[in-house]
Amino acid sequence: MKNKTDIQALYFQYVETTQKAADFSNAGALLDWDQEVNMPSGSATFRARQSASLAEYAHLLITNDSYGKVLQQLADSAFLNESQRANVMLSLEDFQKHKRLSTSFINTLTNQSSVSFQAWVVAKKNNQFSLFYPQLEKMIALKRQQCDLYGFQTHPYDALLDDYDKGITTIRLDEIFGEVKIQLSELLEKILQKPQVEDVFLHQTFDITSQFSLSIEILKSIGFNFEQGRQDYSEHPFTTSFSPQDVRITTRAEQANFKGLIWSSIHEGGHALYEQGLPPDAYGLPLGMPASLSIHESQSRLWENCVGRSAAFLHYFFPLAKQKFSTEFEHVETSMIYKAINKVQPSLIRTEADELTYHFHVLIRYEIEKALIAGEIQCKDLPTVWKEMYSKYLKVDVPNDTVGVLQDVHWSHGSFGYFPTYSLGSFYAVQFFEAAKSANPNLEHEIQNGNFQFLLQWLRQHVHCYGRQYNSEVLSKLSTGSVLDFSVFLQYAREKYGAIYGLDVN
Amino acid sequence: MKNKTDIQALYFQYVETTQKAADFSNAGALLDWDQEVNMPSGSATFRARQSASLAEYAHLLITNDSYGKVLQQLADSAFLNESQRANVMLSLEDFQKHKRLSTSFINTLTNQSSVSFQAWVVAKKNNQFSLFYPQLEKMIALKRQQCDLYGFQTHPYDALLDDYDKGITTIRLDEIFGEVKIQLSELLEKILQKPQVEDVFLHQTFDITSQFSLSIEILKSIGFNFEQGRQDYSEHPFTTSFSPQDVRITTRAEQANFKGLIWSSIHEGGHALYEQGLPPDAYGLPLGMPASLSIHESQSRLWENCVGRSAAFLHYFFPLAKQKFSTEFEHVETSMIYKAINKVQPSLIRTEADELTYHFHVLIRYEIEKALIAGEIQCKDLPTVWKEMYSKYLKVDVPNDTVGVLQDVHWSHGSFGYFPTYSLGSFYAVQFFEAAKSANPNLEHEIQNGNFQFLLQWLRQHVHCYGRQYNSEVLSKLSTGSVLDFSVFLQYAREKYGAIYGLDVN
Repeated sequence: MKNKTDIQALYFQYVETTQKAADFSNAGALLDWDQEVNMPSGSATFRARQSASLAEYAHLLITNDSYGKVLQQLADSAFLNESQRANVMLSLEDFQKHKRLSTSFINTLTNQSSVSFQAWVVAKKNNQFSLFYPQLEKMIALKRQQCDLYGFQTHPYDALLDDYDKGITTIRLDEIFGEVKIQLSELLEKILQKPQVEDVFLHQTFDITSQFSLSIEILKSIGFNFEQGRQDYSEHPFTTSFSPQDVRITTRAEQANFKGLIWSSIHEGGHALYEQGLPPDAYGLPLGMPASLSIHESQSRLWENCVGRSAAFLHYFFPLAKQKFSTEFEHVETSMIYKAINKVQPSLIRTEADELTYHFHVLIRYEIEKALIAGEIQCKDLPTVWKEMYSKYLKVDVPNDTVGVLQDVHWSHGSFGYFPTYSLGSFYAVQFFEAAKSANPNLEHEIQNGNFQFLLQWLRQHVHCYGRQYNSEVLSKLSTGSVLDFSVFLQYAREKYGAIYGLDVN
Repeated sequence: MKNKTDIQALYFQYVETTQKAADFSNAGALLDWDQEVNMPSGSATFRARQSASLAEYAHLLITNDSYGKVLQQLADSAFLNESQRANVMLSLEDFQKHKRLSTSFINTLTNQSSVSFQAWVVAKKNNQFSLFYPQLEKMIALKRQQCDLYGFQTHPYDALLDDYDKGITTIRLDEIFGEVKIQLSELLEKILQKPQVEDVFLHQTFDITSQFSLSIEILKSIGFNFEQGRQDYSEHPFTTSFSPQDVRITTRAEQANFKGLIWSSIHEGGHALYEQGLPPDAYGLPLGMPASLSIHESQSRLWENCVGRSAAFLHYFFPLAKQKFSTEFEHVETSMIYKAINKVQPSLIRTEADELTYHFHVLIRYEIEKALIAGEIQCKDLPTVWKEMYSKYLKVDVPNDTVGVLQDVHWSHGSFGYFPTYSLGSFYAVQFFEAAKSANPNLEHEIQNGNFQFLLQWLRQHVHCYGRQYNSEVLSKLSTGSVLDFSVFLQYAREKYGAIYGLDVN
């Protein structure tokens, strides 16, 4: 038996190795950020091997047997305090999960991911699924193998879901998306029977630099710390973090769509506020990491939708926008832009979808992934399945594969199980927002005045500070009093869109 | 004895480890670049540990005993081809040199470097050498210890010089700087008796963005490949490289000095052309590395001075500059700007010095370093020694330490032995340029027309392609027919400045 001093020394050793691994991962994240934001077009070859070397070594540090032994000894000890124990148990869980995949399997997966990605790029460009499909088929075979290696209780897909949101299962998702199908379809149907709102004024020409500086102003006001973060342009907006002290977001330059840059910026800003709010003293350790991808997405969706697309926010924001775009918005009132940015309309592309139809895009992917992993549908049939589902759930015709089954990058990377977190995050977002409102009945009024301090502090105290200590549903239960509850989202949606479209929603 | 197949397998293993170490160093270089160019002000803490982790692991890979054994076995084998042998012998040399310093010594040095640097920043800001001196004294003691660990034949300082320019010695430098002292002093004296050239028009207000875009134009024309490189702003201009496919330079924004941005840009561009010209198939290996810091500096000085400050170049360049700055340069002729940017004037600050007085700044540092390392002068006397030498060699009064002994960062980092490479590089530059002119008598005419292809190709073929295969003097002998020859520089200086100042120089 080891005594207390031995255990503390061992814990120190665990922290040192884990944080060192984080150094390499975070340096790798900077290489990736640079690749999207700054890297010259002809620099990819050597960059790829540098990224691979960093990732490989980070992985090596936290998967070797001596690290595992340290973790096991710590887990068996009674001398750790609560947060030390939480770190150790989560790291041990990660270790055991990693060990289920052999190094050769990981290499095969990494290589296939790169080959599939290249094939996807070409296929999408040429609008030809057949150029992607042989590589996608190989990827799916590997992911099915991964499910077996991980192990699962009821459905193989559960094994993959767990990577993105620990504890979530197909049984739980079937329940949730069952509600989406019934309740949200019903609401959507009612909306689509009403006259459409006007949004043509969002599609004038808006100077990019002015949009960007407006987005910076908004980011500052919601609490993004520019002394420990920055915003740049990239083709696809994303958030990355090299430590809670260096969190970076990107946004995309779109001149002819006022909805593009600003709300993308608020969305990524929400992700960034979460990363900036993680406890720095747990750098690289589980308690310094985000709880799950669903909770991460809840933070971006909360700021983008619950805040950014609310009437209260527009009351604060639109006068600022009008200062920059006085000609463009000369005849536009706040109530008009509120309706316009909340326009509901079934469409082809997930990333451009509104707050409601969005979940049908996710639902379609969820059902397809589940069936692919179970071997119930064949890869070659995907374009047909895709068209049928878009016709069934969204009543839209898919004219080609580029805007259909090839639109998302995820499958090429092997990220099966990722999509559901987008919907779960949106549902959690509303639960968190409602809980914050209950804690401060004056919140809407504060938002009207551009004061977001209470909201951010509430999130810091009820979500950010815990790191990975709790999984999504436990965290939600702790901070809102309830596990995931779709009815909260539905109620929010009924009220908001009922008012916008003049529905009788009771 | 190992057979040929074994040896080739061993060589492959050597290449793999060496290139992996390069991956980590190059990733570290990106972290450093980002720190100067992009990093938010409040992100330094975690960045520092990430940089340290990368550097430590890169160092570990190429200093562990099994790597040394591989190298020794390869060095003893007869089955390597010429370039394989060159790589192995140079790597073995590096290995043996690294091994002379213990890990604990390297850690002490690294920590002292960071402490001294912080002290230097504060001392320079407060114009108080006494705030720097206790830390500098410790650094000097460590560097003297390093000389003993490395070993040396005649002068301890030789051991340090070798890190920056292999094979150079104090005996050789005494010869060279002896010539500087006599011959260059004489030329300088003649110049200073003549009426000064006019350069007031260089100090108007020049729009930064226009200067930057002009510098990009020039960089493109001299052959900088922007598909494998980029230029940004930073406080102090520098060049860095993450592979020959990703070479980045920075320049500084200076509105009131037309000499600042453009020629700094050409200088760094010269460094960058060298890095872009290194053989990519020797990535991370000695034959893919620059020959020495002196040769590196020769490339920047050649483009900055021999090209950039020549009458031929201005014939091409100045019309382009006039397009951007038609008002500012309305009454300025090419001959006027040629004289202005070549104005010779003793001054306090090395980095702002002209092509001739520059070498007295270096000479002063060389003499001080040599004496410090030999223990012939004391650290506390540095401000006095500095003032005496500036008065003696440059006839300028040093009003305070900030613009005197505290002006350069080098000593705080422990970079003793670095300064001489600045002068050596300038002298080699002229030798290379004259050799290229001999190979193509039409070169000046080509430069007048903005055609730099021949010159770049000559450098690619006679300097860049060799990597570290030869040390500076051997490389110079191969490509110009002569080892370092100060008389070539002196002849160039006499002709150029003789014409500008109307001297009788024969």
